[in-house]
Amino acid sequence: MSTPAIERILRGPSGLGTGGLLRLTPSAPAVEASAVEAPDVESPSAVEAPAVEVAAPDVAVPEGAAGPVPEFVAPGAPTLEAPAVGAPAAEAPAVSEAVVPDVQAPSLPALALPGLTVPSLPGLAPVGAASLGATLLGVAPAAAAPSGGKPGLGDPIPGLYHHPIAEPDPARVEALSLKIKAWAIDEIELYPPEWEKDFDGFSTGRYMVACHPDAPSIDHLMLAARLMVAENAVDDCYCEDLGGSPVGLGSRLLLAHTALDPLHTTPEYHPAWEASLSEDAPRRSYHSAMEYFVRASTPSQADRFRHDMARLHLGYLAEAAWAETDHVPEVWEYLAMRQFNNFRPCPTITDTVGGYELPVELHALPAMQRVIALAGNATTIVNDLYSYTKELSSPGLHLNLPVVISEREGVSRQEGYLKAVEVHNELMLAFEAESAALAAACPVPTLLRFLRGVAAWLDGNHYWHQTNTHRYTLPDFW
Amino acid sequence: MSTPAIERILRGPSGLGTGGLLRLTPSAPAVEASAVEAPDVESPSAVEAPAVEVAAPDVAVPEGAAGPVPEFVAPGAPTLEAPAVGAPAAEAPAVSEAVVPDVQAPSLPALALPGLTVPSLPGLAPVGAASLGATLLGVAPAAAAPSGGKPGLGDPIPGLYHHPIAEPDPARVEALSLKIKAWAIDEIELYPPEWEKDFDGFSTGRYMVACHPDAPSIDHLMLAARLMVAENAVDDCYCEDLGGSPVGLGSRLLLAHTALDPLHTTPEYHPAWEASLSEDAPRRSYHSAMEYFVRASTPSQADRFRHDMARLHLGYLAEAAWAETDHVPEVWEYLAMRQFNNFRPCPTITDTVGGYELPVELHALPAMQRVIALAGNATTIVNDLYSYTKELSSPGLHLNLPVVISEREGVSRQEGYLKAVEVHNELMLAFEAESAALAAACPVPTLLRFLRGVAAWLDGNHYWHQTNTHRYTLPDFW
Repeated sequence: MSTPAIERILRGPSGLGTGGLLRLTPSAPAVEASAVEAPDVESPSAVEAPAVEVAAPDVAVPEGAAGPVPEFVAPGAPTLEAPAVGAPAAEAPAVSEAVVPDVQAPSLPALALPGLTVPSLPGLAPVGAASLGATLLGVAPAAAAPSGGKPGLGDPIPGLYHHPIAEPDPARVEALSLKIKAWAIDEIELYPPEWEKDFDGFSTGRYMVACHPDAPSIDHLMLAARLMVAENAVDDCYCEDLGGSPVGLGSRLLLAHTALDPLHTTPEYHPAWEASLSEDAPRRSYHSAMEYFVRASTPSQADRFRHDMARLHLGYLAEAAWAETDHVPEVWEYLAMRQFNNFRPCPTITDTVGGYELPVELHALPAMQRVIALAGNATTIVNDLYSYTKELSSPGLHLNLPVVISEREGVSRQEGYLKAVEVHNELMLAFEAESAALAAACPVPTLLRFLRGVAAWLDGNHYWHQTNTHRYTLPDFW
Repeated sequence: MSTPAIERILRGPSGLGTGGLLRLTPSAPAVEASAVEAPDVESPSAVEAPAVEVAAPDVAVPEGAAGPVPEFVAPGAPTLEAPAVGAPAAEAPAVSEAVVPDVQAPSLPALALPGLTVPSLPGLAPVGAASLGATLLGVAPAAAAPSGGKPGLGDPIPGLYHHPIAEPDPARVEALSLKIKAWAIDEIELYPPEWEKDFDGFSTGRYMVACHPDAPSIDHLMLAARLMVAENAVDDCYCEDLGGSPVGLGSRLLLAHTALDPLHTTPEYHPAWEASLSEDAPRRSYHSAMEYFVRASTPSQADRFRHDMARLHLGYLAEAAWAETDHVPEVWEYLAMRQFNNFRPCPTITDTVGGYELPVELHALPAMQRVIALAGNATTIVNDLYSYTKELSSPGLHLNLPVVISEREGVSRQEGYLKAVEVHNELMLAFEAESAALAAACPVPTLLRFLRGVAAWLDGNHYWHQTNTHRYTLPDFW
């Protein structure tokens, strides 16, 4: 993406937009939250067709803002002045894309990034640029669950950094629960009657209402709920408890993936493929959920989701390879696998479920990709921690972060668990710091709303794990 | 993407763009090729930073074009008038995204699509809208190789529909060959000395010069050449001849994939991951090739490439699952696997290698996704056909389209092979017909250039297979 194009997106027709950043320095006293808060430009009651061109970011300029507006350099945008190809620098790249931090705002030194130097836990409040970004994002108060004493049923994990949320709207939960069950039974014949208790116990309705507080309607929530049910059907039936196995998994997952990313072949072979999409519950659910999603999303949003699902399936297959060979990976290898076998496809549809679109160029920015990855990694380890006891009852050694740390670093299971809590907290704080910095550096309304949506998804995911006592109980480590 | 946004992109600042389409009807006599040919708006000598906003498509309006300009409906764009979510239609989708044809231009009835009803082989010329699109695209003359008699060394496969190309510029081939070998030896230590003959025999330089005739420079060609070498290193070392195995492949591929799609983790575990990227030739080559690519591409182009590589790795893993269980898939299943284990990542970087960008919204259009998939599928079966004899010498039953057709449809290997040629031809003609229709319906210069680039890649890929007698010889089937 060219720098002028990014500038146009960021500036918007009004020519404002980034000017307000001038005042958003850590030393600026008492910036009113109401003055810099991103306005809700999207009406939550209307399903909008997302626009490629971002609407004028109507960010209020704090009183007293004046002076020259600096040129904004978008993080990650290739520089026009030094084309990479052909220039000597391009032939010997000095900095890997993977080197942290990715987020740089060189023209705004006051917004220097905290990078991965995360704030220490006790205070919990992000610092510097992050706190300003947090203000822009309207982040909920944080909490580390009390670390003394044994947690009760439905309590959060002691010491786990998280944001408690209010109980999801019971009317929405009830409406969504009825509707998702009707879809599962009537439209895709998801499960036999004896699995009903587990389907109900999963509480898809409560889960999705908690994760998507800005969804304009039940129909929007259904987009997320169907995909969540479908993803679980594939995981359960192909990979895990309900008949799954590592053997042949690569074939099953690829054929299921064609329900998301369709086959294009000759008329002779097309019908057999199409018929295959109805052959089992995983494919029926992927196919139907994706049909709805494609109709409600832009082509770019659908493409983004397919990419995230390809990542998920690669993650399943790495995990399966280890299971098949009884291999316990290094901790970093496990974390790499878990970046793919990850909740990522769920938070990244927050804009479609919210009825708007994060412009595709902003989604592709390295800084945004990093924020999404950190968010996905943090919230995925929440699953490792809450499902630890459940997974103990699986046959064989079920890999999760506490187990891998314990095995590879030669510590007890309890120590492994408590260290995994710390790893989670670091990732969560890094997500928040980098998200806030990105928000401060690039206060486009849809970008701010997307970042808020990802954060809300994480909070809702924690809430669901914490309160889903049908599935999860905590180990006796405190 | 909203319809107005698409219209804006298509129309460009001049308000022209689609007006010329009025005259592009099958019944319009003698449209001069020079009048409708897309101008080369990109200077091939400059590395441009691709723009998000498409430059005004300077499509010449043929003399006599007049009358009202119809509103252009972009194929695949969600309609604003009937929001999918919440409306009854959204709850009961009648048409699957996967149903062919995807390409529809309802407001331009004269441009009705041939869909998958491909022209019959003898004439070889595409018909109707396709021929107009072909004119826009400047498609090279087609040829079916003579089907009588035994082919000589370096001859094309008898009956294979393809476009012969001129010998690639020897000076470019020489320069690129020296440079890619220097990279392989000096920068990534790709191979031990005893593999030099095979490296040279692969003829990467000739291959990439043939596939990217519009690359502005050797440095641009190097982007493609490095990735090609890297992809082959991973395939050879992890999956196939040189120590590969289906066992544990899911782990190896995922860890290699992090060289393309980096891990985001805590400071404690980051260094071990980073060190892993230098641990073997596949990861060294992926990592280095991707570093160069990221520096020369936009974030969206890099994201597109990562997605295609995730698809490729899923394809490898499905193939490995079958190899491990000695399973011979149905023909449609094989074709589905081969849509993922596919050349797709190579032609879809044609714009980066050409020094421009296909706008990401146009890349995501279902019609474009279908064209890319058909192109990838056709050109991948070229590989199955030319490498048939080579693969016969592999241990066990090496799956390719001729073998799968023979096994599953109860015909001889020869009949399987000849039917696979027909499948290829159908896919190739479908690609050309739908590509031409998309070009006619959406004559944005970067889109036209991208479609020409994909077609050129296919022609170059055929040329390389045909002439690479170091690797390939044909079976005795004629």
